[in-house]
Amino acid sequence: MKNENNSFVSKNQLQRFPVYIDLLKKMNGEGRLNVSSQIMADYLKLSEETVKKDFALVSRNPGKPNTGWPIQELIEALKSFLGYNDATNAVLVGVGHLGRAFLNYEGFKDCGIKIVASFDSNPYIVDLKVNGIQIFSIEKMESTIPRLNAHIGIITVPESEAQEIANTLIKSGVKAIWNFAPIHLILPDNIIIQNVNLASSLAILSYELNR
Amino acid sequence: MKNENNSFVSKNQLQRFPVYIDLLKKMNGEGRLNVSSQIMADYLKLSEETVKKDFALVSRNPGKPNTGWPIQELIEALKSFLGYNDATNAVLVGVGHLGRAFLNYEGFKDCGIKIVASFDSNPYIVDLKVNGIQIFSIEKMESTIPRLNAHIGIITVPESEAQEIANTLIKSGVKAIWNFAPIHLILPDNIIIQNVNLASSLAILSYELNR
Repeated sequence: MKNENNSFVSKNQLQRFPVYIDLLKKMNGEGRLNVSSQIMADYLKLSEETVKKDFALVSRNPGKPNTGWPIQELIEALKSFLGYNDATNAVLVGVGHLGRAFLNYEGFKDCGIKIVASFDSNPYIVDLKVNGIQIFSIEKMESTIPRLNAHIGIITVPESEAQEIANTLIKSGVKAIWNFAPIHLILPDNIIIQNVNLASSLAILSYELNR
Repeated sequence: MKNENNSFVSKNQLQRFPVYIDLLKKMNGEGRLNVSSQIMADYLKLSEETVKKDFALVSRNPGKPNTGWPIQELIEALKSFLGYNDATNAVLVGVGHLGRAFLNYEGFKDCGIKIVASFDSNPYIVDLKVNGIQIFSIEKMESTIPRLNAHIGIITVPESEAQEIANTLIKSGVKAIWNFAPIHLILPDNIIIQNVNLASSLAILSYELNR
C-alpha cells in the first residue's frame, strides 16, 4: 500500500493508528497536551522506533526532544490520514444479532463510516428501523444502494449467503467490503476487502490456553 | 509460541487454521475426500509452500503426491491442534448489543468455547437469560466464576470499564481474555490476551477507500 506521498504503509501500521487515536484521546481527556514517543511505546508495548516511524508518516510536525508531540495535532493528523474526516456511506446486509449490534454501535461515525441503510431477507423485520436505520428487503439492494451513494458494504449474513450478497453489493456500486462471514469471498481485484474472522482470533486464545 | 513438539507456531499460522477448517468442511460437504495443498493455496490465495508447512505442523500423515491430503483426518488434526475438542468454559461480561450477539452465536462450541454465564451491571437485565445463558450481577463475578470453572473471559463492556473488569476476571481465575473494548489492557504476563479492535480493521478499509 502506498499513500499519496508514495511512501509505503503496511497493514500493521494502519491497524495501530486507531489504537494511537484512542490512547491519545484518553491522554488528552486527562489534560495532557504533549506526549513523547517513548511514553506511547511503553504504554502499548511497542518499540519507540516503531512509534516514531508511524508518527513521522502522518505528521509533518516533528516531535520535539523536550516536550514531545502535540497530542491534539497528532490526533487530527492520524484521523485525516485514515480518511476519518469525510464520512463514507455504508450499508449493512444481514440484520441478525451481530448486524443489529453494529446498527446500534455509535462509534462508527468516529471512524469515518455512516451506516445509511440495512438489508435483510426476513419479511417480518423489513421496513422496521434499528437505531433509526431502515431495514430494506434484500431484493431492493441494487435499486437502493446507488441512490444512497454507499461505497462500503458490511456483510453479517450467514456463510452460505455471503458470496451472493458480495456479488450484489459490487453490482450496486460498493467499492469496499467488511466481511464478518467466515468464508473466503471471491472478488474482483479492484474491490477492497477486510475479513474479520472471529474464529481466527479465538483459535490463538484456545491454542495458547490448551498448551 | 511453541507447540508440544517444540516447533515454532506463529500467530499468522494459528489464524489460518480456522480458515482451513471452514474450507475443508465445505469441500467435505460437497463430497470431496482428499485435497491437494495446491488447490487449498489457490482457493485461499496463499502459496502452496505455506499450506504444506501448515499441514505438516498438525498432521503426521504426509499428503500423498497423487491423491493429496485426506480431508476428514486433516479437519480432526487441525481441531485437535487448536484444542477445539475439549470445550473450555467461558464467561462474558457486558450484555449490550455486541455481548447479546455473542450469547446468541451458536458457532463458538465448534471452536472449543462454551459460554456458561454472563455478567452485567444493569439491574433490569440481571437474572434474565439470553439463549439459555443466565445474566448475573457484575458483583457476583468473583463468587460465580470459580464455581463454574471458567477460564476464558470475554469483555464486551465499554472502554471505560474494561480494565476493572479484566482485573476482576483475573482475580476470579480467568486465564485468557478475549477483549472487544477498544483499549489497551494492562495485564500480568501469564494472562493470555486477544484484542479484537474493530476500528483497526475499519482503518484499513477507510484508508484504502480514501486514497
